[in-house]
Amino acid sequence: MRQVYLDYSATTPVKKEVLDEMLPYFSEKFGNPSSLYDLGQEAAAGVAQARGRVAHLINANTNEVFFTSCGSEADNWAFFGVTDAQSAKGKHVITTAIEHHAILHSGEYLSKRGIEVTYLPVDHEGRVHPEDLEKAIRPDTVLVSVMLVNNEVGTVQPIKELAAIAHKHGITFHSDAVQGLGNVPIDVKDLGVDLMSFSSHKIYGPKGVGAMYMKKGTKISNYLHGGAQESARRAGTENTAGIVGFGKAAELAEQNLESHIKNVSSLRDYFIEQVKKNIPDVIVNGTMDGRHPGNANITFKYIEGESILILLNEKGIYISTGSACSSKSLAPSHVLTALGIPVEMIHGSIRFTVGDFTTKEDLDYTVECLTDIVKHLREISSVNAEKGW
Amino acid sequence: MRQVYLDYSATTPVKKEVLDEMLPYFSEKFGNPSSLYDLGQEAAAGVAQARGRVAHLINANTNEVFFTSCGSEADNWAFFGVTDAQSAKGKHVITTAIEHHAILHSGEYLSKRGIEVTYLPVDHEGRVHPEDLEKAIRPDTVLVSVMLVNNEVGTVQPIKELAAIAHKHGITFHSDAVQGLGNVPIDVKDLGVDLMSFSSHKIYGPKGVGAMYMKKGTKISNYLHGGAQESARRAGTENTAGIVGFGKAAELAEQNLESHIKNVSSLRDYFIEQVKKNIPDVIVNGTMDGRHPGNANITFKYIEGESILILLNEKGIYISTGSACSSKSLAPSHVLTALGIPVEMIHGSIRFTVGDFTTKEDLDYTVECLTDIVKHLREISSVNAEKGW
Repeated sequence: MRQVYLDYSATTPVKKEVLDEMLPYFSEKFGNPSSLYDLGQEAAAGVAQARGRVAHLINANTNEVFFTSCGSEADNWAFFGVTDAQSAKGKHVITTAIEHHAILHSGEYLSKRGIEVTYLPVDHEGRVHPEDLEKAIRPDTVLVSVMLVNNEVGTVQPIKELAAIAHKHGITFHSDAVQGLGNVPIDVKDLGVDLMSFSSHKIYGPKGVGAMYMKKGTKISNYLHGGAQESARRAGTENTAGIVGFGKAAELAEQNLESHIKNVSSLRDYFIEQVKKNIPDVIVNGTMDGRHPGNANITFKYIEGESILILLNEKGIYISTGSACSSKSLAPSHVLTALGIPVEMIHGSIRFTVGDFTTKEDLDYTVECLTDIVKHLREISSVNAEKGW
Repeated sequence: MRQVYLDYSATTPVKKEVLDEMLPYFSEKFGNPSSLYDLGQEAAAGVAQARGRVAHLINANTNEVFFTSCGSEADNWAFFGVTDAQSAKGKHVITTAIEHHAILHSGEYLSKRGIEVTYLPVDHEGRVHPEDLEKAIRPDTVLVSVMLVNNEVGTVQPIKELAAIAHKHGITFHSDAVQGLGNVPIDVKDLGVDLMSFSSHKIYGPKGVGAMYMKKGTKISNYLHGGAQESARRAGTENTAGIVGFGKAAELAEQNLESHIKNVSSLRDYFIEQVKKNIPDVIVNGTMDGRHPGNANITFKYIEGESILILLNEKGIYISTGSACSSKSLAPSHVLTALGIPVEMIHGSIRFTVGDFTTKEDLDYTVECLTDIVKHLREISSVNAEKGW
């Protein structure tokens, strides 16, 4: 059976070039990068090269990139590190209603421990309005955190403008750019962010590696305490092979950025067009003006997204009803809720994300299956409606 | 040039069987384990199998094992999670003077934020005395954390006895078993610990993966907040390939435990014997009665360990002056200091750790080089002493 993966925002396969570069670090160049002898320094050199590559992709200085175990860890670090280091200044944090759970649950945890968290609203396209940030700022605000690209609807936020507002008030600005990396151009200096979170496995690198961009001079405590790894900012023996893989993936992402965006968005646009042409009563959520190039979040009215997911899975097509991290939850998506989408429409929503290995044939097959499935589910649903179920 | 790796306590090479089992999870079974479709569930099954294997190695229930990004993260989790969850009971933690920095620096951080930390002393063999723990316990003590096997001198602690004392007083007991796993038999139920930290890369698994054993019912807050991974106890997309590797390494460790301990300790004993026979004025630190099977921590009087390290490195022999995590620090080892070893002797101390790929020939070559190097350094040192340097 044909297999069609359309969940690139959940995770991506490791590219061959990436894995090839990782392989020697498992059993040959296996030294501990903290060790002073050659075998250790060889591993340290691999980590250093990777740091340079990630830094280059985002236009950071090399010593401003710190490897973590995932994007979530970097998000936690931003929240816990800034509120700790700047506790004398205040105990107020501003974020948005559509952040990843790594942000929202960090905020929730802190809010039970004396930190006040304000959640900015978004408009029906999923965009934060700068004037809302301006209004929410207080003298005791220590951190503003707004994601670069939303993981469910793909909306790109006006980070440069938002960071400038935060800085006007002397507030540290963090952005979760896990979905943005490799999918939109990122220049941390131009954006003016102080902190930015990244993840390797969203850009065809391995799982288990993330990074934090930390502008020199940012007031932030450490989050993981122990050895002097990562310039004594993040403890724990380096995931050498994983970091090397992240570095290679970053290099490829930089080389391919333009063509990746062009190809993926053209496939995504084709997909949306075909879905609209073949299936009635569909709505594309979010905005086409400033959106993740691979993201198509679509509501199929009158039916359940989970049923679509199950039936597409039987056809070898892998899609998602929302973020992978909350895929087991029955609660309606907090992102779509924040966009003002009615709950019955949320339950009929699917996130398709196209990536580097997607073909036009994959999408044609998907539209074909989807058309049948939606038709079938709507028939059942209308029968049920007649029966009063 | 011959290469001799004698720093297995710093890290280990990934075994071929382990890497082989990891490989499909990078680019084929690459799904996000949280995803509901087949590709995700295939990855989830890999993680589940690994959890079972790690649990089996330590005689835990499968649902009591939680994967982390490293041993340090598990150590941080124990400290931050228990002091947070049990803050209403008290703000006192007991640990020892010879813990890994992941414990010591977590304690240091918390001690600046209202938690009081008592550091138990050890005797000249590096062992904690149960009566010292008994004396240190207070009504507001919420956590006792004592490592199973010391990373520098290899001393095995009487964890069962210490845990029983803590439990007599209703206190949660944690043990950092990063150096113990695969090197001494571990039965969490028999030891009676509530929490135990592990790391994959010390047992021939990949770097970037650790685990926490958490006895059901233990009062501990989450440390990494976000998605519902790891039964909603540890957020962040699972490092699938790494976890699968850890699982395979755990399976091998269990199969080989007896022969590993026998072979490695016999090589280590041979090495110590040869060193003593060929080099005058050496002292073996720690104790031979309850010690990591591969560990030989040796003081070469009158000279600097770092000079030995540099000269052995030139011969392709990789050893360490202490833990890798503090290898760049010039401060004398806190472990050897706690054993009461004079500072000038500490500076002349080397940690050799033997592992599964060590041969008798490796050790003969090492003793040969070491004999020459020590002789040479002592000559320089005595010349310098005469010159009054």
